[in-house]
Amino acid sequence: MKIDDLLKYFVPKETAFFPLFEEDAQILIKGAELLKDLVSTTDADDRDAFIARIKATETEGDRVTDKIFTQLNKSFITPFDREDIHELASSIDDVLDNINAASQRIRLYKPKTLTPEMYQVAEIISQVAHQVEIAVNGLSHPGKNREMIENACDEINLLENKADHVYNLAISKLFEEQKDTIELIKTKEIHQSLEKSVDKAEDVSDVIRTIMVKLA
Amino acid sequence: MKIDDLLKYFVPKETAFFPLFEEDAQILIKGAELLKDLVSTTDADDRDAFIARIKATETEGDRVTDKIFTQLNKSFITPFDREDIHELASSIDDVLDNINAASQRIRLYKPKTLTPEMYQVAEIISQVAHQVEIAVNGLSHPGKNREMIENACDEINLLENKADHVYNLAISKLFEEQKDTIELIKTKEIHQSLEKSVDKAEDVSDVIRTIMVKLA
Amino acid sequence: MKIDDLLKYFVPKETAFFPLFEEDAQILIKGAELLKDLVSTTDADDRDAFIARIKATETEGDRVTDKIFTQLNKSFITPFDREDIHELASSIDDVLDNINAASQRIRLYKPKTLTPEMYQVAEIISQVAHQVEIAVNGLSHPGKNREMIENACDEINLLENKADHVYNLAISKLFEEQKDTIELIKTKEIHQSLEKSVDKAEDVSDVIRTIMVKLA
Repeated sequence: MKIDDLLKYFVPKETAFFPLFEEDAQILIKGAELLKDLVSTTDADDRDAFIARIKATETEGDRVTDKIFTQLNKSFITPFDREDIHELASSIDDVLDNINAASQRIRLYKPKTLTPEMYQVAEIISQVAHQVEIAVNGLSHPGKNREMIENACDEINLLENKADHVYNLAISKLFEEQKDTIELIKTKEIHQSLEKSVDKAEDVSDVIRTIMVKLA
Repeated sequence: MKIDDLLKYFVPKETAFFPLFEEDAQILIKGAELLKDLVSTTDADDRDAFIARIKATETEGDRVTDKIFTQLNKSFITPFDREDIHELASSIDDVLDNINAASQRIRLYKPKTLTPEMYQVAEIISQVAHQVEIAVNGLSHPGKNREMIENACDEINLLENKADHVYNLAISKLFEEQKDTIELIKTKEIHQSLEKSVDKAEDVSDVIRTIMVKLA
Repeated sequence: MKIDDLLKYFVPKETAFFPLFEEDAQILIKGAELLKDLVSTTDADDRDAFIARIKATETEGDRVTDKIFTQLNKSFITPFDREDIHELASSIDDVLDNINAASQRIRLYKPKTLTPEMYQVAEIISQVAHQVEIAVNGLSHPGKNREMIENACDEINLLENKADHVYNLAISKLFEEQKDTIELIKTKEIHQSLEKSVDKAEDVSDVIRTIMVKLA
C-alpha cells in the first residue's frame, strides 16, 4: 500500500484538493517569473536556459494537474461540483501551457529583438498568477473569504484589460517603427501567444466566479 | 436602508433580472449601431467621437453587468441556474468589450482606409444584437416563447457563419489588392477583432440554448 | 404520425442518442479524410472537388446535430445531463465547421503552394477524429469503458500539443524560407484555421471528460 493510498483514509475528502491547488498556483507563479526573466534577457544562452526551465515548470504543473484528477476520481465528496474542480485544474494548466507556447515561439521564431511590451505583459501575467494564488487559497473557506476571492477575480479582469491595451500599443508601435515585415509578424505572433496566456488566466477567474456564484 | 435593499423584499426574485438583461441588450444594440457609424465615416473627428462614445457605451454595459451580479448575490431564488445567469451577463459583456476593442484598434493602428466589409460585419453585429435582445426578452416566459428564442439563436448562428464568410472574402480581396503589407496586416487585425465580437455573440446564443435545454 | 414520432415510444430514451453520436463521429472522420486529400493534392480541379465534398460533409454533420437536438427536446430522461449532450453535439459540429473553414480559406486565398505541415496537421485531425469516435462510442457504457474513454481523451490532448508544435515549426520555416510576405500571411492564416479545428476537437474531449467526471 502506498503512502498516498493510506493517506486518503485519514485526510477528509473536502480538504485534500486545497494543498494541490496551492501547489499548482505556486508553479504558475514560478512559470510567470521565468517568463519575465526570459523576455528581459538579451543573452542567447541565458534565454535557452530560461526556455528549458519554463518547459520543466510546465511538466511539473502537468504532474500536479494529474494528481488533482486522480484525487477527483477517488473522492466521493468534493468541496465544489466535481466538474468545477476539473475545470479549475484544467484552466490553470492552460495558462502554463500558453506560457510555455510563448517561450517556444521565441525559441523557434528567433526574433531579432524582443519588445519592452513583452516584458510588460509578462509582468501582468506574473501579477495575474499571484491573484490566482490568492483566489485559489481563499477557496478553502469560501464563505469567510468571499470578498478576498471576488477582489482577486476583479483584479484578474482588470489585468486582462490592461494586457489587451498593452498588446494594441505594442502592435501599433510595430506598425510605425518596424520596417522589416517578417520581424513584425514574428513579434506579433509572440505577443498573441502572451495575450492568450492572459486570456486563459481570465478563464481561471471565470471558473472561480462560477464556483462562488453556485455557493451563494 | 437603501432603496435597493428595500425593493428586494417586494420584487419577486424571479423577475428582477429581466429588466436588467433587457437594458443590457439595449446597450449592446447601441454599441453595435455606433460601430456601424464608426466604420462608415471617413472624417477623422467624427471617428474619434464615435470611438469615445463606444468606450462610454462599454462602461455603461459594465454598470449593468455589475447590477446583475449584485442582484444575483442578493437572490435566493433565481429563474435559471445561478451560473447561467452569471454566464449570460458575462457573455453579453464580452461582446461589448470586443466591439470596444475593435474600435480601439482603429484608433491606435490608424489604417489609411477601412474596408466596405468592415461595414458589412458591423451590420451583422447589429443584427446579432437585435436577435440577442429578442432572445433575452423571451427568457422572461421561456415556455411560451421557446420557438421565438430558438429562432433567434438559430439566426445568431447563421449570422456568425455569414460574418466568417465576409471575413474570408475581405481578406482574400486584401491579398489581391493591398500591396502595402503593413496596411494589409493592420486591416486584418481590425477584421479579426470584429470577428471576435461576432464569436462572443455566438457564446451568448450558446448560453441561452443551454438555459433552454435545461428547462425542456 | 411520422415514423420518428412512433419510434420514440419504443426506443428507450437512454440509448437513442448513441447511434446519432456514432453517425456524427463517422462524418467527422470523413471530413478529416477529405481534408487530408485536399492538402495533399496539387491538381486544381481535384482540389475544388475536395472542397465541395468537405462542404457537403459539413452540411451532413449539421443534419445529424439537428437530429440530436430534436431528440433532446423529445427526451424526458437522458443518459447524461441535457446540457452536456447539447454541448457534445455542438462541439463536434464546431470541429467540422472549422475543417470547412480551413478548406474555404484554401479556396479563397489561392496560396501558390500548400506546406507539408498542412498535411501533418490534417493527419493529426484525422487521428483526433478517430479518438473522438472511440470516446463517443464508449459513452454508451461509460462505467465499463471508463479507461478506454479516458485514454482517448488523453490521446486527443497529446495530439493537440503535437499540432501546436507542428504549427510553430511550420511558421518558423516560413519565416526563414518564404520571402513573399503575402504568401507567408496566406499560409499562416490557413494554418491557423487548421489549428482551430484541433482546438475545437480538444473542446470535444473536454465535454467528454466533464461527463465522465460527473459520473464518477
